[in-house]
Amino acid sequence: MLTGATGFVGHHTLIALVQAGHDVHALTRRRGSDLPGVTWHECDLLVGCEVVDDVKPEVLVHLAWYAEHGKFWSSAENVRWVQASLALLRAFAAAGGRRAVMAGTCAEYEWGGEQDFNERDSPLAPQMLYGVCKDALRRIAGAYADETGLELAWGRLFFLYGPQEAPERFVPSLVRSLLAGEPALMTNGEQRRDFLHVADAGAAFVALAESQVVGPVNVASGKAVVLRELAQRIAQRVGGGELLQIGARPMPEGEPPALVADIKRLRDEVGWSPEIGLEDGLDSVIEWWRGQPDSGGP
Amino acid sequence: MLTGATGFVGHHTLIALVQAGHDVHALTRRRGSDLPGVTWHECDLLVGCEVVDDVKPEVLVHLAWYAEHGKFWSSAENVRWVQASLALLRAFAAAGGRRAVMAGTCAEYEWGGEQDFNERDSPLAPQMLYGVCKDALRRIAGAYADETGLELAWGRLFFLYGPQEAPERFVPSLVRSLLAGEPALMTNGEQRRDFLHVADAGAAFVALAESQVVGPVNVASGKAVVLRELAQRIAQRVGGGELLQIGARPMPEGEPPALVADIKRLRDEVGWSPEIGLEDGLDSVIEWWRGQPDSGGP
Repeated sequence: MLTGATGFVGHHTLIALVQAGHDVHALTRRRGSDLPGVTWHECDLLVGCEVVDDVKPEVLVHLAWYAEHGKFWSSAENVRWVQASLALLRAFAAAGGRRAVMAGTCAEYEWGGEQDFNERDSPLAPQMLYGVCKDALRRIAGAYADETGLELAWGRLFFLYGPQEAPERFVPSLVRSLLAGEPALMTNGEQRRDFLHVADAGAAFVALAESQVVGPVNVASGKAVVLRELAQRIAQRVGGGELLQIGARPMPEGEPPALVADIKRLRDEVGWSPEIGLEDGLDSVIEWWRGQPDSGGP
Repeated sequence: MLTGATGFVGHHTLIALVQAGHDVHALTRRRGSDLPGVTWHECDLLVGCEVVDDVKPEVLVHLAWYAEHGKFWSSAENVRWVQASLALLRAFAAAGGRRAVMAGTCAEYEWGGEQDFNERDSPLAPQMLYGVCKDALRRIAGAYADETGLELAWGRLFFLYGPQEAPERFVPSLVRSLLAGEPALMTNGEQRRDFLHVADAGAAFVALAESQVVGPVNVASGKAVVLRELAQRIAQRVGGGELLQIGARPMPEGEPPALVADIKRLRDEVGWSPEIGLEDGLDSVIEWWRGQPDSGGP
């Protein structure tokens, strides 16, 4: 059973589940496209979904959450999603579920240092309500799983990019501006970030679901990219490099210098590594935006 | 608005609220006795209580939780109470609430050392599902309160005793055995614990509700009592000291040597201190059990 199957990560997780030959029950507010082996169930987790009792899934991949760009960091919706996620997990356990995989976030870690984050040693200190809620959900779900014999894995997502990303976010906003021939403003771009292609994120969640690994696992590329260089690579591909105004925006207060994952656990214990390089990944994004009516593309 | 008003702590909190002249809306599954200034609302927080929207309370004191002796430490009911508490807090905020006080536990702290626990420096590391759920609820509720402008105080309870305590617990089980002329078995009793009379706990929650202090506050006596000495004091009062078999039970594995609160914050910031000494408090317990039909009293 997959929740959030029409979302940014969920869509690619669904495709990867289908490709791996799994029998998938997708639980979403509105059904998505027909795919072989996929049964859609329309229901709202914030209200409650009795379908879990009927389907009795063996494995749950729970990706649904409030994700509106710019709002999700501090929205009270995060609290509702903690409630809904706990209700879902209890229903899954009550229906005989064996293994649950949930989506966490790099915002659970204590930001500010230069070290790559690893699941064993890096301190946790979420600051925004989003990170606090994810961190607290992980604590409860983990202890509940220990008590009930459920396997619980927690895939901590870092930065993602790919086709269909919300247009206001870093990569698509640059691509769109450059495609439209408009100035693309950014900070000095010295921040180091870990960007994973969303199709890889979907594949990683399938690998995590198929594994027996429990506890937190960073789902990321494990490679640092400097934002300025990422922007320059995008400009090289799209053209219009003279529109890129590096340093035109002030660095936001408290912006962490580095948010990069150590992915040893994902690679060695889950046995999965990223497959899509940054160059190919950026090309897939640029191609997708070129195909959008309002993108300024040809 | 007070939840759990018919419970062990809630009952005494209700009395203290009435004595302080507050207009109280008590929210419980089954109504308690009539008291001046108290309006009872029968509703189940695990299902949902719309009465919060109607009453629009200014202050919420939320004590309701699953508390069955011997089961509450690891029961999945703890997870349901996280969900219910978050729903209640959101409803309270949506109805214009100003200040919420919730009940935490010494089980949020990392057990094992000899130091008194304080809210600022003592590490948190709950082990059992009960402590994990309370700790996680505090994290979410605190971040939600910061985001919405609500005041949130978190009263961390340590060990309580008093009339009407569950008969299987340490103090009442000793009192009852001795009153019945039966052997009272215990460990070597070297553990140091912090015992607060439940009427003091109720008064402390009222002081906390009336204050402007936010964040965690230990609600405890601040005094260590060695369990062996506590048992001996009980035996001195009840009589039948020869029935007290100190060391007859093995020390449970992992039993922490000391669980004692530093109550500086309660005393200096909230401005409240315990009023019932251990001698008077034990007498109140013994008197109460003497009056019970099956207690073996006169």
